[in-house]
Amino acid sequence: MAGRNVFYAQSGGVTAVINASAAGLFDTIESYPDTFGQIYAGKNGILGALREELIEVSAMSAEARAGLSQTPGGAFGSCRYKLKSPNERPEQFARLLDVFRAHDIGYFFYNGGGDSQDTAHKVSTFTREQGFPVQCIGIPKTIDNDLPFTDACPGFGSVAKYVATSIREAALDVESMAESSTKVFILEVMGRHAGWIAGASGLSKADGHLAPQIILFPERVFDPEDFLKTVDAVVARDGFCAIVASEGIKNADGQFLAETGHRDAFGHAQLGGVASTLAQLVQSRLGLKYHYAIADYLQRAARHIASQTDVDQAYALGAHAARLAEAGRTAVMPIIQRLSDTPYQWALDSVELAQVANVERTMPESFITADGYGITEAARRYFLPLIQGEAFPPFHDGLPRYVRVEYTFAPKRLPAFNV
Amino acid sequence: MAGRNVFYAQSGGVTAVINASAAGLFDTIESYPDTFGQIYAGKNGILGALREELIEVSAMSAEARAGLSQTPGGAFGSCRYKLKSPNERPEQFARLLDVFRAHDIGYFFYNGGGDSQDTAHKVSTFTREQGFPVQCIGIPKTIDNDLPFTDACPGFGSVAKYVATSIREAALDVESMAESSTKVFILEVMGRHAGWIAGASGLSKADGHLAPQIILFPERVFDPEDFLKTVDAVVARDGFCAIVASEGIKNADGQFLAETGHRDAFGHAQLGGVASTLAQLVQSRLGLKYHYAIADYLQRAARHIASQTDVDQAYALGAHAARLAEAGRTAVMPIIQRLSDTPYQWALDSVELAQVANVERTMPESFITADGYGITEAARRYFLPLIQGEAFPPFHDGLPRYVRVEYTFAPKRLPAFNV
Repeated sequence: MAGRNVFYAQSGGVTAVINASAAGLFDTIESYPDTFGQIYAGKNGILGALREELIEVSAMSAEARAGLSQTPGGAFGSCRYKLKSPNERPEQFARLLDVFRAHDIGYFFYNGGGDSQDTAHKVSTFTREQGFPVQCIGIPKTIDNDLPFTDACPGFGSVAKYVATSIREAALDVESMAESSTKVFILEVMGRHAGWIAGASGLSKADGHLAPQIILFPERVFDPEDFLKTVDAVVARDGFCAIVASEGIKNADGQFLAETGHRDAFGHAQLGGVASTLAQLVQSRLGLKYHYAIADYLQRAARHIASQTDVDQAYALGAHAARLAEAGRTAVMPIIQRLSDTPYQWALDSVELAQVANVERTMPESFITADGYGITEAARRYFLPLIQGEAFPPFHDGLPRYVRVEYTFAPKRLPAFNV
Repeated sequence: MAGRNVFYAQSGGVTAVINASAAGLFDTIESYPDTFGQIYAGKNGILGALREELIEVSAMSAEARAGLSQTPGGAFGSCRYKLKSPNERPEQFARLLDVFRAHDIGYFFYNGGGDSQDTAHKVSTFTREQGFPVQCIGIPKTIDNDLPFTDACPGFGSVAKYVATSIREAALDVESMAESSTKVFILEVMGRHAGWIAGASGLSKADGHLAPQIILFPERVFDPEDFLKTVDAVVARDGFCAIVASEGIKNADGQFLAETGHRDAFGHAQLGGVASTLAQLVQSRLGLKYHYAIADYLQRAARHIASQTDVDQAYALGAHAARLAEAGRTAVMPIIQRLSDTPYQWALDSVELAQVANVERTMPESFITADGYGITEAARRYFLPLIQGEAFPPFHDGLPRYVRVEYTFAPKRLPAFNV
């Protein structure tokens, strides 16, 4: 006899490997047919539960199912929507309970970052208190790499591989042109609060490669004079300077650099302008020709250059989430435990969601060099295993063959609900 | 007995595959030991000839030589430097002749775009007139794809593959987030005068993928009202809108959009701002959340996602240049002739440099759809073969293993020359 049904949803900013976690989860759930019933994926995260928009995973085509772990983005849609507490929005929690009851949901898997772990925790507590206990398992995911306890967050390793590859490539280009053309190149990467991504770009500087000569971390106050002096010295030494700048760098007043200086024709402050702000500084003060790139979503969607380690861990965490549920656990999150750096060995474990929710892991100070512009050997030891292996997707007609899931919804059993 | 020596140089903006042309040239030259002597690569293009900075190709390590065709950028340095005519700068041409005589250069291979073909043509004429004839062969290269006669220009196919892959990936990300987050995504790509690169991104729209729904070509006047109306309609239909914008788009006054509107804190016009200009427009007029990426050098250096067809053609054109020289030709450029679209079949041919120099090939009008925002079937037939095959480089420690050539210079035989 099949057990109670499963609800799975993706939440927050998506990644190149979040669907691999879904694949690991689904495959493992199906291996326990006595424990688990139907699998439903919420359309657009928790919104899918509130709206009773439940995608039938069993109705997915074999092609879509096979391509899931090779496709970036959120195959079932995601959301930027944080559930408030049951006291603040009792009607939302009551609705969740109605939907879970109506579809006999006994398992709730929420695949996201810190906010999502908080949601999963709330749902676990609330359903138990209401006498309809739903086992809630968080599945970690975030390119920001800021969840505690786990060695790395799925999605991060692939971004790391992308930014390190990209700055190495662009630097070879700039280096070859520098004498009579561009001398300074800036790559703006994500990371509003922590420099994990910017830091990982430092892996490029190996095997004789010079770039990036400067990394700008949000953990360090941006000092324009010191920065300009350093750029000048690097150009004098190497002929060119490749810079990776975190979008989150701030000046001594605590202002985001992206929000300083630039105004459009209407006087609006311009957003996302770290790279252009730095570029203007370099040109106006040093008179050096510059170019800049803004990786934006390209970095977190770049499944074509995903890390095999990252894909493996994403899949394994989804699979382990199913096993935790099968073992009767609730309000927990599977994590990666690092056993050794070289060779990289890791194991699966789990932590209580109560310990995880809303805790942000920042990058250790010991990862940044004394001058503030590079990564230390300790950082390199941490980052290097996470980018190992190339998980190239299959290609068709010259482009990655990614799937778009056709949604088949479970019939609604409840009246509409206004989220 | 070995023949006269060979001078090779790279010129103009570099690409992901220009070194593959160098590899094809070197390998083929070495297969005619009776015809050709030593191979010298000019450091930083023609500047290397003027300064007598001649890199000894025979002194390259086996590893560097093997990695050449897998490494982006210009392995011997490139330059943005256009030779004027012998009448305008007679001392420069006299110097070239001195260097060629001093090192017994009988063959001049210049790997570049339109300007470079012009240089090669001038050198051929001048040396013949001076009684020291040097055989000059141009080797085509430019991501702009604007050289005439050849079916495609080496470097373009790999950029095409990169931009089509990137917009497909980013669109999957945006699509999954669109309901509660970003609805409009803009990718800014190169192409100041022609929309070849922007157009190639349209290949992404296949196999069920929706993006890019809008391509902005420099061949079309940018009409803000029509653009906004179209974005609005696409978002209403698909839930999100992915846009690829050429850096060269202009408004009805013929002004580059990148130069309109944006001023920094000091009142300087801000460059390279097509994506941010469009984003501001979308936000201020439609109130839609946006993100944008600027691919910049990442696109032309992305050897990790290079087209195998592009690499093959780059290598073949280098090899054919050597064969043309061996056959006694001068003032010619090898080209790719398309024999059929499906299957893609191509052959090598050559044209006179006099016909090539300073002629710019623009994208046919028939490649752009009537609404001005997409590509036609004719365009698709043209572009598709050029991105076929994945020429993944070897990886080491999670990153592409690219070579940096250690330069061994031929001993100087002449006094210094002030370029």
